[in-house]
Amino acid sequence: MTNSKVEERLNEAGFVLPAAPVPQGSYVPVVIAGSVAYCSGVIPMQDGAPGVKGRLGVDISIDEARKGAELAVLGLLANLKAAIGDLDKVARVARVGGFVASSPDFTDQPEVINAASDLMIVAFGEDGRHARTAVGVAALPRGVAVEVEAIFLLK
Amino acid sequence: MTNSKVEERLNEAGFVLPAAPVPQGSYVPVVIAGSVAYCSGVIPMQDGAPGVKGRLGVDISIDEARKGAELAVLGLLANLKAAIGDLDKVARVARVGGFVASSPDFTDQPEVINAASDLMIVAFGEDGRHARTAVGVAALPRGVAVEVEAIFLLK
Amino acid sequence: MTNSKVEERLNEAGFVLPAAPVPQGSYVPVVIAGSVAYCSGVIPMQDGAPGVKGRLGVDISIDEARKGAELAVLGLLANLKAAIGDLDKVARVARVGGFVASSPDFTDQPEVINAASDLMIVAFGEDGRHARTAVGVAALPRGVAVEVEAIFLLK
Repeated sequence: MTNSKVEERLNEAGFVLPAAPVPQGSYVPVVIAGSVAYCSGVIPMQDGAPGVKGRLGVDISIDEARKGAELAVLGLLANLKAAIGDLDKVARVARVGGFVASSPDFTDQPEVINAASDLMIVAFGEDGRHARTAVGVAALPRGVAVEVEAIFLLK
Repeated sequence: MTNSKVEERLNEAGFVLPAAPVPQGSYVPVVIAGSVAYCSGVIPMQDGAPGVKGRLGVDISIDEARKGAELAVLGLLANLKAAIGDLDKVARVARVGGFVASSPDFTDQPEVINAASDLMIVAFGEDGRHARTAVGVAALPRGVAVEVEAIFLLK
Repeated sequence: MTNSKVEERLNEAGFVLPAAPVPQGSYVPVVIAGSVAYCSGVIPMQDGAPGVKGRLGVDISIDEARKGAELAVLGLLANLKAAIGDLDKVARVARVGGFVASSPDFTDQPEVINAASDLMIVAFGEDGRHARTAVGVAALPRGVAVEVEAIFLLK
């Protein structure tokens, strides 16, 4: 099995693609529409189960949540690889949506989701630079601290 | 008036398309961009008014909210039919966004939004399988428990 | 420097495009994908800093938040102008996402985000009519009351 350049870059930075996570409901991980790939929201998985739980401003730190954002991106990229076969087929990361479980007074969502954005740039270089929306939500599936969705453009 | 195959499948499963809901603000229900249909977020309507109100984890059950998710999808499909004339023109449900009004400790958003996803599959079969993001929000318009948006690909 | 028709309409209505806001994280303001422009979520800026802070239902009024929604749209349009050079190249506003920092009992998100939608129609006329999703979130970056994202179709 040959690694793509994208995976080589991830590995060199100390990241490893996990197995594609099992969807948490009756949906599919990726839908391809021409040159656009719509990727489902992904939550952090640890040892095969939802992990990095908590709510920012209450019981989890920014650094811990950033680790969750990275795990979510890795799961998302694993989903995408399963759908398109090779991450080198990505032309551009178009958009990232970042959802951070937040108390009403936690307002550093960008610092959490930056970990997701930075990992996209590790993986795809300049093509990893994307439009983004980051918001603080009341709660996320399975009690995780962060969820990440994305839209990719394919070659 | 001839029913589409999509509507026949919905009817056989016991669902009926409502009148297209009136937008809750200064927007339009659907924008068509080539073969992509962007559908506005829709809230559940009952007897012509917003219904299925409450917040998960506080004052509404998962089963009640699932009924709201179905009503939201039915309204969304009514909007889409009004925009494109015939739901059989749908090639694929690309993406569903599900928002669930949630207390901070409610983390079963997937179980609520599964009702929306499952109804898409009832309506469109395999073409109804979509990418999805489900999150728990602080509050929704008019106090409803669930809101659903979607992107469709058209033939 | 010639003003576009879009900017003329904004100016006639008393609005002025600001400098394009500095992203609040490691992302880019706009990604162009063929004829689609994905615009990052934008928060209101005042005097170069995040402004219009607060949470609806707690410590900010609908009218104040509506002003924030307008500032967010102006920042978003400034971003888009910086990316495409001339706002007259916009063919259609396809979709607006509006996030309103809300207490659990605040349910008038549409009234807040209508200010964003109405400003799109001021700027682009009939081509400004868009699909939309408006939800109430727990918290937003920097403590602002409203955040707006959008997808545009380009000529």
